[in-house]
Amino acid sequence: MARFVDVRNMVRWAAGRGAEDIMSGMIAYLEEDFRRWESFDKTPRVASHTAFGVIELMPTSTDETYGFKYVNGHPSNPARGYQTVTAFGVLADVHNGYPTFLAEMTVLTALRTAATSAMVAKRLARTDSRTLALIGCGTQAEFQALAFRAALGIESVRVWDTDPAAMEKLASNLGPLGFDVVATSSAAECVADADVITTCTADKAYATILTADLVRPGVHINAIGGDCPGKTELDSAILALGDVFVEYTPQTRIEGEIQQMPADYPVTEFWEVLTGRAPGRVSEEQITIFDSVGFAVEDFAALRFVRDAVDGTDLYEEIDLVAAPEDPKDLFGLIRAAAPARV
Amino acid sequence: MARFVDVRNMVRWAAGRGAEDIMSGMIAYLEEDFRRWESFDKTPRVASHTAFGVIELMPTSTDETYGFKYVNGHPSNPARGYQTVTAFGVLADVHNGYPTFLAEMTVLTALRTAATSAMVAKRLARTDSRTLALIGCGTQAEFQALAFRAALGIESVRVWDTDPAAMEKLASNLGPLGFDVVATSSAAECVADADVITTCTADKAYATILTADLVRPGVHINAIGGDCPGKTELDSAILALGDVFVEYTPQTRIEGEIQQMPADYPVTEFWEVLTGRAPGRVSEEQITIFDSVGFAVEDFAALRFVRDAVDGTDLYEEIDLVAAPEDPKDLFGLIRAAAPARV
Repeated sequence: MARFVDVRNMVRWAAGRGAEDIMSGMIAYLEEDFRRWESFDKTPRVASHTAFGVIELMPTSTDETYGFKYVNGHPSNPARGYQTVTAFGVLADVHNGYPTFLAEMTVLTALRTAATSAMVAKRLARTDSRTLALIGCGTQAEFQALAFRAALGIESVRVWDTDPAAMEKLASNLGPLGFDVVATSSAAECVADADVITTCTADKAYATILTADLVRPGVHINAIGGDCPGKTELDSAILALGDVFVEYTPQTRIEGEIQQMPADYPVTEFWEVLTGRAPGRVSEEQITIFDSVGFAVEDFAALRFVRDAVDGTDLYEEIDLVAAPEDPKDLFGLIRAAAPARV
Repeated sequence: MARFVDVRNMVRWAAGRGAEDIMSGMIAYLEEDFRRWESFDKTPRVASHTAFGVIELMPTSTDETYGFKYVNGHPSNPARGYQTVTAFGVLADVHNGYPTFLAEMTVLTALRTAATSAMVAKRLARTDSRTLALIGCGTQAEFQALAFRAALGIESVRVWDTDPAAMEKLASNLGPLGFDVVATSSAAECVADADVITTCTADKAYATILTADLVRPGVHINAIGGDCPGKTELDSAILALGDVFVEYTPQTRIEGEIQQMPADYPVTEFWEVLTGRAPGRVSEEQITIFDSVGFAVEDFAALRFVRDAVDGTDLYEEIDLVAAPEDPKDLFGLIRAAAPARV
């Protein structure tokens, strides 16, 4: 039997333990997997693009455990009452190939994306960072704020979204949690005085959410909305202002902000910073840019974390996903045994 | 909610309706999808190879529906009490990217592989074919026999396997179903007088299950066991004796029997035969070879068939796989609403 954490149980878990505490714990799992980055079997995700959006499969594997995520991205979904991104994921045992764990990942992806942002910002943002600017107040926004508070102690959040209702939603979600939320009326106003800037917009287009003149020295930019071919958020001049850090270079060159740059544009993979093989932030004035597109290893870490966290609780069900005939060569015998009279 | 057909329900369905009748019905769905072959978004499967075996994701899509299968292949599994191949699959709605249908596919893959073999043999084997030789009596063998009876009326089956217990298992499964089963003591004895030869062995190696001197004029060879790099079944001289038909050329050149041949070795894709764009069998003496590796479109057709077949029955459950917040931009609100006191 495989274990299954459905939406109801994922929400129960997140609500009971708290998203902020979960993301703190998840960062430890993420760091563990980024530290053993070279031991993963890595491949760019497999995407199926249509006029409506994209559906992707994101596999990765160690010698012990295989994992993948199914995820869609449909920018026009919210206008029709659907979410932009939904997902689910699976872990399997490499030794026999059997799937062992299935989980909803719509909620979990929101948690892992923000936890990844915070893990990276812990190493790249200035240690005295006090204010987060959030451009884009969709699904990801609250999770970003909570993750940055968990990892960097940031409680002051400035927000901007072209949809005033989205800003109101964010303020009403974050206000009661102790955040100082300031709604602004432009990207320029939003990022003024910010130490960290998160861009998390959903438009599937070459967009310019942020221009170079708005970026002060010393800022850390966490660019997470540009994540597929033809979908970017930053003015390319911003990339030239600072140093660009990525998850997995071959995928980010296709999907990230650096798709705007030459194919040999210099970048640093974050696992190199984490393991001390490459420098992270080198000065107070440096502009650091995390060109995040989301990589399978992050989902792998998030799935491992949930699997371990729900062990011994009532937060999962067992499902009958793998046929188990008594004689492994006699699959047909399963059917024959169940047949009323004849097969 | 997504619909889920687990192992228990898949077996109930197969036992209640009968594997043979199911494969007859499935052939119609397979033919429908092979006829619209050009409308599918096709990509070679994404494989993760380890010392133990392989885990693969096999996606494909039309403008309306996306599907993928997770499948493993671990040749040493039966010796440890596990099955060589297990699988599950998903269908999703391309318009919003939401998964709609999840099914076990260990049993279903066995049905679809045999149904595909039979669909192809209907067009390529001699119409007077009366005897099937089965080399390899593992999981796939009974399904092959039933599919060939359904599609071509074959009731005489000659079998060979290095494991006598596997041959006994097959005889005891097929005998009561009205087949004339002859166990033999070598590949040569097995294929003597056979009109159709199915090779379905599981060894992950360059093997030679069948040599060219054993292949009579007019035979149709259904080679399904050679399906990944480094895993073949046929003497390469056999390929030169006849005409090779494949599912999807880019994948088969990597995984099929033709991995032994030059990269430009001539092959015909089966959909071209089905739609009349290419000839199939052109003479009674011609040797036809279906170099089958299994392609995502076949799983897509099989999943569609089960989805439609269980509609209106008690053969599926609904599972909570996609989070559905009231406001699609307010995923966090789902957690907040479920929180006991604070998030």
